[in-house]
Amino acid sequence: MILRMSSMFLRTLREDPADAEVPSHKLLVRAGYIRRTAPGIYTWLPLGLRVLRNVERIVREEMDAIGAQELVFPALLPREPYEATGRWTEYGPNIFRLKDRKGADMLLGPTHEEMFTLVVKELYSSYKDLPLSIYQIQNKYRDEARPRAGVLRGREFVMKDSYSFDIDDDGLAVSYELHRKAYINIFDRLGFDYVIVKAMSGAMGGSRSEEFLAIAENGEDTFVRSPGGYAANVEAVVVPQAEAVDASAVPAAEVVDTPDTPTIDTLVDAMNAKHARSDGRAWTASDTLKNVLVMLVHPDGSREPLAIGVPGDRAIDEKRLGAQLEPAEVAAFEESDFEKHPSLAKGYIGPGVLGAENSSGIRYLLDPRIAEGSAWVTGADKPGFHVMDLVHGRDFTADGTIQAAEVRDGDPAPDGSGPLESARGIEMGHIFQLGRKYAEALDLKVLDQNGKLVTVTMGSYGVGVTRAVAAIAEGNHDELGLVWPREIAPADVHLVATGKDSEVFTKAAEIAAELESRGLSVMYDDREKVSPGVKFKDAELIGVPTIAVVGKGLVDGTIEVKDRRTGERADIPVAEVVDHLVATVRS
Amino acid sequence: MILRMSSMFLRTLREDPADAEVPSHKLLVRAGYIRRTAPGIYTWLPLGLRVLRNVERIVREEMDAIGAQELVFPALLPREPYEATGRWTEYGPNIFRLKDRKGADMLLGPTHEEMFTLVVKELYSSYKDLPLSIYQIQNKYRDEARPRAGVLRGREFVMKDSYSFDIDDDGLAVSYELHRKAYINIFDRLGFDYVIVKAMSGAMGGSRSEEFLAIAENGEDTFVRSPGGYAANVEAVVVPQAEAVDASAVPAAEVVDTPDTPTIDTLVDAMNAKHARSDGRAWTASDTLKNVLVMLVHPDGSREPLAIGVPGDRAIDEKRLGAQLEPAEVAAFEESDFEKHPSLAKGYIGPGVLGAENSSGIRYLLDPRIAEGSAWVTGADKPGFHVMDLVHGRDFTADGTIQAAEVRDGDPAPDGSGPLESARGIEMGHIFQLGRKYAEALDLKVLDQNGKLVTVTMGSYGVGVTRAVAAIAEGNHDELGLVWPREIAPADVHLVATGKDSEVFTKAAEIAAELESRGLSVMYDDREKVSPGVKFKDAELIGVPTIAVVGKGLVDGTIEVKDRRTGERADIPVAEVVDHLVATVRS
Repeated sequence: MILRMSSMFLRTLREDPADAEVPSHKLLVRAGYIRRTAPGIYTWLPLGLRVLRNVERIVREEMDAIGAQELVFPALLPREPYEATGRWTEYGPNIFRLKDRKGADMLLGPTHEEMFTLVVKELYSSYKDLPLSIYQIQNKYRDEARPRAGVLRGREFVMKDSYSFDIDDDGLAVSYELHRKAYINIFDRLGFDYVIVKAMSGAMGGSRSEEFLAIAENGEDTFVRSPGGYAANVEAVVVPQAEAVDASAVPAAEVVDTPDTPTIDTLVDAMNAKHARSDGRAWTASDTLKNVLVMLVHPDGSREPLAIGVPGDRAIDEKRLGAQLEPAEVAAFEESDFEKHPSLAKGYIGPGVLGAENSSGIRYLLDPRIAEGSAWVTGADKPGFHVMDLVHGRDFTADGTIQAAEVRDGDPAPDGSGPLESARGIEMGHIFQLGRKYAEALDLKVLDQNGKLVTVTMGSYGVGVTRAVAAIAEGNHDELGLVWPREIAPADVHLVATGKDSEVFTKAAEIAAELESRGLSVMYDDREKVSPGVKFKDAELIGVPTIAVVGKGLVDGTIEVKDRRTGERADIPVAEVVDHLVATVRS
Repeated sequence: MILRMSSMFLRTLREDPADAEVPSHKLLVRAGYIRRTAPGIYTWLPLGLRVLRNVERIVREEMDAIGAQELVFPALLPREPYEATGRWTEYGPNIFRLKDRKGADMLLGPTHEEMFTLVVKELYSSYKDLPLSIYQIQNKYRDEARPRAGVLRGREFVMKDSYSFDIDDDGLAVSYELHRKAYINIFDRLGFDYVIVKAMSGAMGGSRSEEFLAIAENGEDTFVRSPGGYAANVEAVVVPQAEAVDASAVPAAEVVDTPDTPTIDTLVDAMNAKHARSDGRAWTASDTLKNVLVMLVHPDGSREPLAIGVPGDRAIDEKRLGAQLEPAEVAAFEESDFEKHPSLAKGYIGPGVLGAENSSGIRYLLDPRIAEGSAWVTGADKPGFHVMDLVHGRDFTADGTIQAAEVRDGDPAPDGSGPLESARGIEMGHIFQLGRKYAEALDLKVLDQNGKLVTVTMGSYGVGVTRAVAAIAEGNHDELGLVWPREIAPADVHLVATGKDSEVFTKAAEIAAELESRGLSVMYDDREKVSPGVKFKDAELIGVPTIAVVGKGLVDGTIEVKDRRTGERADIPVAEVVDHLVATVRS
């Protein structure tokens, strides 16, 4: 395949698009791979489509290699199956809904759990039919509130989603492991610097769950890892419940006068100034218990207040909090909400009102660091007053715990494998053991060996295909442009003919033809009346891994071959250049 | 590639699906290629997807061969470009519309003229950039009132649509011809029995327009052809205006008493009984002028009455009528509509009320067979009365002509190439010269050689890809099942192992592996505990062109090879069977 730049449907831009913030977005638009059609909705131009197809091919090969079978569902789906599983409601405004001409409710599929479950129910009936893994590579739709960074988070995007079906948990574990290995192969071949982390299963339900994150400064996900090998999406970090401590020596709780101390800092200062500790130590923020109110908005639109107690030195992490509460969304607790709950003294809220035997009627959840028997300085539920020596379990209780406090660098890994360190990543793949949630909702049962109907257990496995293109670009560029990994580059060689000498173009065309006959794809810059400088800039921007320049060197019988990534150049004798390029590409 | 039936996600059905009427629909469902998800919306199971991909590959290869470049637009599109061209309204209820979470109007693309036009406008600016042909193979959406026959007329379907862009009409003619040749290659390779016919350009506007129709009894389109080579979709047949005749000898028009003659038959009888012709000939239906009223419903919902005059022996063809009036839809003229037009005497309507100087205010169009100077028996606009010797041009005029009367076998071809004969077909491809309609609406201009801005002229070219699978099935089956043309079959060879002898399965597995290593795809029926009868039935139903049976013959050292289409069988020595099969597939 020869792509001639003189006729290719391609225009590179020297300026960054106004709406682009991250490098991959800027470069994919500037180099002519994608174009924006609507917010979060993109057109794949010929160059971009070539890269996208390469990613699809790699994903397909690895899925086929584990015996998964490809099919394709419609993108436009009827409401009923999504109603049966509750997702029609749970997805809230995040799915595109529409009515057909007869008034029937339909949606654009965000993921296809329901459809996969139903098709297996229609075709299969016995344990002998299992295990089964089926997949599709297809357009998905999510009406993101904040589509972002080009195709990194779009509203129409391509995903590979696969599902495994097994008769029992052991089978599911095997299917999961097969997909895990396939994913490792996929992300290795895509040239990612990635990490596999424990993940939340989110709105999907299920048990074991891992994400493949491409490590990237601009990633939306934060993950933590320890020297001992622990790795988790920060949303999925489970801080263990602190062990109970002996509270027998703690004096009785005492209300103390702390005027104008609505914040933890002002509280700590006031306590140190006016209410010295018996042991002489200074009060710190970690001695205080901060109670935060939020408002949950459920998918059906109903609102529920929630109180969360965390040590005063620790903020609430909105993403961790959100992940715990899905499918509800978390909104601010407004002034008007305070008015509806007059027992809440803003800035001085304490477990007296929130605790289990409280008067507020608000659910109250504690950070797991709040040990049974531990004593706290916290709000006394009246303006200007706090209470000290308030002991958890003795003086107050709560409705449960929640993993919502921030995770900080240096925090111990939950498995004891050392201090955590955080970094950012882009979620490229997600594998998880769905279990029987969808099979139960849609009644997918098969006969087991004893002739008894049993519910099938499922695994769910996704790869963001369009997102992968952006994530690869995010991890493979320099100040001049893109630098594609070889297996997904839009061409094997970028051949540039420079100068006005017709001999140059004749020789270059000859080389292009020879490379094509050897099975290579060639991007051939055959444009006349375009300066060498512009051609070089375009080649750097487009990012084919190997650039060959037919130009000035030709009089000395050489052609310059440049490695796009390292910048290394070599003058290769004309007679050897085809062999040299083929060897380079195949190496 | 070996597809093992023991693990393949496939279940064949012995019964026809209840909602299927045409053979292709029944067989594609029964043989496990597709499954219905919602009305007009289908899932492509693994076998079906293999066939679909083969069709896509052929289309892609032929498009690439004429230098067309592939890209892909989103399916979910913003309203604005479709508003600019008027199609947002014109499509009426035939497109899926939706709103996103911010209330923006969007649609699921029915075709992408607007997007193609805009992307060229964004990237190109000079005549030097042209000609250009770009295409996509992509999901399209139409909210058909009557989705039909499985994937033959679906609401979500795959189409290849391409567009050519040229600086002038001569360029467009060249681009059109290139596509026409590519389409001939495509439909030849797809194994169609097809005909190229003149076509209407419909809601698209434009000039030269041809359809590729697969000849099929169950086709929705009717076409006519003549021995001399004329061929047209019946909608596109243009009957020439009959030449004026001399009316000087025709007596003055005379109102005649014709009680109880609201139909042409009763009128002809009454005329022959009561009002003999001066020349003694009997009156026939062809002497009468029938005036038919319909109601046009415009895309904006407004209603407009329309009267059509045709010779009494000729019916109105609803599809021809509809094609002339697009984007308006044609509805019945109801009793309540008559009430609003009291001057219309139902059953006795004539040009007296409808004609140009009429009192009804209704537009009146005549069949082109109504020559200037010809005399007619027609309604006298009062119940029980007709008028005879009413001469077109002398006694009445109309607002124009319309191509709405039926075309009958034996009618002369418009080009004089002999009598027409009709048949039915499935529209597989449509090529037409769009001209400047979209370029004007969206302001696509480039600089010409003189530095002057000129509007680009476009061609539009579509192939129904999912429809092609159904149409091929429609044309390639017998009472036992499907019979795929070789290039699009889901596998090259269907290898059946029969019996309980493990040696049979060992040998069959060996042959499958050898065929695979020779580059063939093999559907291998390795199922144990399934009877030979069931396996043979499945093989016939699935329709791989070559079936090889490893079974009883093995003791004599032979394997039976059967041609699915002809039914021819041959016993091939085991040692030769792989070579034989490879040669058969490659022949």
